[in-house]
Amino acid sequence: MVEIADKSGPVFHMVDGAPSPVAPYSHAVEQDGWIFVTGQMPSIDSDQGSIYPEGIEAQTHQVFTNLKQVLAGLDLTLEHVLTMRVFLLHFDRDYHGMNAVYRSYFSPGRYPARTCVGVTGLAKGALVEIDLVARRPSSPIFS
Amino acid sequence: MVEIADKSGPVFHMVDGAPSPVAPYSHAVEQDGWIFVTGQMPSIDSDQGSIYPEGIEAQTHQVFTNLKQVLAGLDLTLEHVLTMRVFLLHFDRDYHGMNAVYRSYFSPGRYPARTCVGVTGLAKGALVEIDLVARRPSSPIFS
Amino acid sequence: MVEIADKSGPVFHMVDGAPSPVAPYSHAVEQDGWIFVTGQMPSIDSDQGSIYPEGIEAQTHQVFTNLKQVLAGLDLTLEHVLTMRVFLLHFDRDYHGMNAVYRSYFSPGRYPARTCVGVTGLAKGALVEIDLVARRPSSPIFS
Repeated sequence: MVEIADKSGPVFHMVDGAPSPVAPYSHAVEQDGWIFVTGQMPSIDSDQGSIYPEGIEAQTHQVFTNLKQVLAGLDLTLEHVLTMRVFLLHFDRDYHGMNAVYRSYFSPGRYPARTCVGVTGLAKGALVEIDLVARRPSSPIFS
Repeated sequence: MVEIADKSGPVFHMVDGAPSPVAPYSHAVEQDGWIFVTGQMPSIDSDQGSIYPEGIEAQTHQVFTNLKQVLAGLDLTLEHVLTMRVFLLHFDRDYHGMNAVYRSYFSPGRYPARTCVGVTGLAKGALVEIDLVARRPSSPIFS
Repeated sequence: MVEIADKSGPVFHMVDGAPSPVAPYSHAVEQDGWIFVTGQMPSIDSDQGSIYPEGIEAQTHQVFTNLKQVLAGLDLTLEHVLTMRVFLLHFDRDYHGMNAVYRSYFSPGRYPARTCVGVTGLAKGALVEIDLVARRPSSPIFS
């Protein structure tokens, strides 16, 4: 009965190789095939700790690298994402640069729902943070 | 088998008549009866492109007009909304004006869950943006 | 048939004892076992109306007190939370203080997914607001 109870609650995922958490969160939490991924920063783990690349284009690419790594650790890809939320530290300056990079990660006609707003602060001075909700493909009833 | 796989993944909705996207997103994305609607701006499509009406009351009404149009394109209404997120460019100035308009779109006792915060920037200088999560009514098992 | 239709739609929860709403929202909205909880402020209801305690640590504790009260009203606890969103009025100043308090409410290895950003305004000048998504444990198929 304990095993059933465990399986029916949230599963807290920490993904090997994904950036070390900078705060109390799991990389992703899953239940019943729904996956909530923590907002990823543009972190690159290194011997000197975590660093960010320079500029909105490089940081946006790095955020996607990190999101894809978390998803891959759960056997998922960006194709399974339903919605993303984008937070920018310098909205007016970086909106178009972020969009240009963002667009390159999806096939036309298969863009997630999205909300993008400007904020006053992100962890360790990042220029961009993105979180997402994904869904595992439904199992075919007859297989 | 491909058909089953397609049906089991996300459906990316673009709704005729809804405001033209200003960035890489679908109007809404759906899977298993859950619908994530992209944050709507107060856009009015016109021959001169997209414009915003003036003032928080008019912009809030226009955001709801656009949200309802997206929902209608999916055979849904505001009655199917579970949660909304409201982003304001001038929080202290516009919070009460937005709330007065917002309230008018719901029946008392049937307000969605909500989070409302002030942000530093929204696309094209909008005063307000609202996104939402909706759910299709469950099919009765016996019908 | 009306009864079935009602049961299949969203349930709008107002929880006895939880802080009085300051705007048009339900404390939480639920459908098919998914619960969206409105962003809680650090409100303490009193004879003189709603007040906030002083400082980020006290306000973060009060937000959790209020979130737990809403969850308890739905027979849920923080153990059922999948993701939280934290909004800070003074991000750089309060990020570490909020995290220290936040961390104390969870068991290591069981942290929800999370996104934390700085905002320009929260209702009535709060320093912190947190919303969340929770899930009822699945019923065992054989019980």
